[in-house]
Amino acid sequence: MDRIARLRADLRRSGLDAVVLTHPPNIQYSTELRATAGAAIILPGRTVLVVDSRYLSVARSVADTRADTSVERAERSLDEAVVAVLRRENPGRVGVEGAHLPVARFNRIQSLLGTAAAGDAAGPVLIVTERLVERLRAVKDAGEIATLREAARRLSSVASQLRTFAIPGRTERQIASAVDDALKTAGFDRPAFETIVASGPNSALPHARPTARALREGEGVLLDFGGIYDGYCVDLSRTLHVGPESPAFRRLFDAVSEAHAAAIAEVKPGALPVDIDGAARRVLARHGLAEAFGHGTGHGLGLEVHEEPRISPHAPEGEPVLAGMVFTIEPGAYVPGTGGVRIEDDVLVVEGGCEVLTDGI
Amino acid sequence: MDRIARLRADLRRSGLDAVVLTHPPNIQYSTELRATAGAAIILPGRTVLVVDSRYLSVARSVADTRADTSVERAERSLDEAVVAVLRRENPGRVGVEGAHLPVARFNRIQSLLGTAAAGDAAGPVLIVTERLVERLRAVKDAGEIATLREAARRLSSVASQLRTFAIPGRTERQIASAVDDALKTAGFDRPAFETIVASGPNSALPHARPTARALREGEGVLLDFGGIYDGYCVDLSRTLHVGPESPAFRRLFDAVSEAHAAAIAEVKPGALPVDIDGAARRVLARHGLAEAFGHGTGHGLGLEVHEEPRISPHAPEGEPVLAGMVFTIEPGAYVPGTGGVRIEDDVLVVEGGCEVLTDGI
Repeated sequence: MDRIARLRADLRRSGLDAVVLTHPPNIQYSTELRATAGAAIILPGRTVLVVDSRYLSVARSVADTRADTSVERAERSLDEAVVAVLRRENPGRVGVEGAHLPVARFNRIQSLLGTAAAGDAAGPVLIVTERLVERLRAVKDAGEIATLREAARRLSSVASQLRTFAIPGRTERQIASAVDDALKTAGFDRPAFETIVASGPNSALPHARPTARALREGEGVLLDFGGIYDGYCVDLSRTLHVGPESPAFRRLFDAVSEAHAAAIAEVKPGALPVDIDGAARRVLARHGLAEAFGHGTGHGLGLEVHEEPRISPHAPEGEPVLAGMVFTIEPGAYVPGTGGVRIEDDVLVVEGGCEVLTDGI
Repeated sequence: MDRIARLRADLRRSGLDAVVLTHPPNIQYSTELRATAGAAIILPGRTVLVVDSRYLSVARSVADTRADTSVERAERSLDEAVVAVLRRENPGRVGVEGAHLPVARFNRIQSLLGTAAAGDAAGPVLIVTERLVERLRAVKDAGEIATLREAARRLSSVASQLRTFAIPGRTERQIASAVDDALKTAGFDRPAFETIVASGPNSALPHARPTARALREGEGVLLDFGGIYDGYCVDLSRTLHVGPESPAFRRLFDAVSEAHAAAIAEVKPGALPVDIDGAARRVLARHGLAEAFGHGTGHGLGLEVHEEPRISPHAPEGEPVLAGMVFTIEPGAYVPGTGGVRIEDDVLVVEGGCEVLTDGI
């Protein structure tokens, strides 16, 4: 069953007749249209792509390959064009992407539809939905897995060069630039996010931006980087130490390593994200580092660098991980003023456990 | 008057007691906090930054420099932490950023506040606002102008190298990669968007992504690239021709050049965006290219690469451009199957006219 057919089945289960997709990765996943702006209206029997002039040719070439897909050009605004299609097709209950559609656009579409008044059953009714396409995207198909596996292999080849980049005297920015060059050489279209290189005390900031601070002998350096390969994102962190290690760094590193291994050991179809996260968290707590680990243990990878599933204490209940999901495992511990350690790999859930897609040092 | 003071004055004029900023560039502009997620609650007498553990240190160092600013850590979710602050401070009418806050988050905050029922005047009431901070951001201060001028100078130095990158036999991707390297060498943190290199017929797609197509002798190539320098975005397009020009390319190029000059001639304090756009559009129409110019003439530049003002036929009425605004002028003409031309420069509105910040070939 193709992606739109699965989405239509989910719509029916949710009591919806149609959905207006406005989040570009969700549009791309469902229809193959790549556009930074636009809408895909998934109706029971057909799909309408709404784009402005910039993406008209691209949308038409997508529609040319699917008999049930047509294109509408947004002349004045996207929302007006979407409303025109909804009025014409009058599909009844129409989902919108509540996690992405801004409230002002929702209100405008609602008001253009003229169905804001309760009880007016003449026109389409907007229903705020969440995670419709995101849940489909979380389980990768064979083609996506092949792409992510290849992307992870290439990212590992960058990881294996980190020791040659992280040389005392070089600034964080210079090291980040070397990582970015290596990503390009490894065949990535571009970094998946701004590369993090945090040296010494800066590594205590989990999301530090690279500064002009030079790496010094005898300190740690945290590197977190990702790449987009054929549209798919992979993500990896390593924490190196340059020169003689302090016992404090070694303790932090060993605790995070142990947490990382414990979380990976927990990953298998049916495991709950809170339990995978909990495995890492328990190890760090045992080492007295409960307070030092403030973020979640992992996040899904795919068309976006942060997607479902979330591996965190606040993950939705009753939603175990499934075979075909790909996500990061990245526990960390951060001690303000001293430094931090994060170790991150990408895993694919397979029958009975998981395959670690990344390696390198 | 500092930025938050101006924002507070605008809030009062809009009948609001407070605003919850959730759009990261608006948070950064107003409070100097740089975080990919978080909220800034601007109350009458004080500001509360709400962040998760990742940005706690960064937020605290911002708060340390301002007596009226404090930090709240979001333990479970950002929205719950925001609601806790609003309940405690009970500011009355609270604006939210309608162009950015997703409708599902708006509904969740509304429901957590428990004030969804009309007439319940006990707690804060959410009001959907738009463009509160965006309008302040549109007029640059002296520091921002200095940064943008320097960024534009550096971008022009990249533009002046384009002839050495766009060599027949090189693929669009290779040429884009050379542009990206030059951006880095010129001191940009990173490209402001994915560099566009569109050769021959591909240049008829205004937002083509670079492909493996090799540039050929005797055809045009459209290059559109930007960089982020010290947090500020600049943007430039050139269309080159390699080898002997066809009369068709020359006609297109001359028409777009003329439209570009006509739009720039229109820019001065008090001019309406629709009239600046109209100046370019009229020239292209006169050359029989009305249909070939499907996008707007320009967009503001600043912390974002697309911001206010919009220079388009659909710009808000009654909002003239003002001294200190910085935006692109980028008319284009695209002929499917044949090719396209776009010429883009960045201008600063000054008394009596504008200063063109970019140059290069």
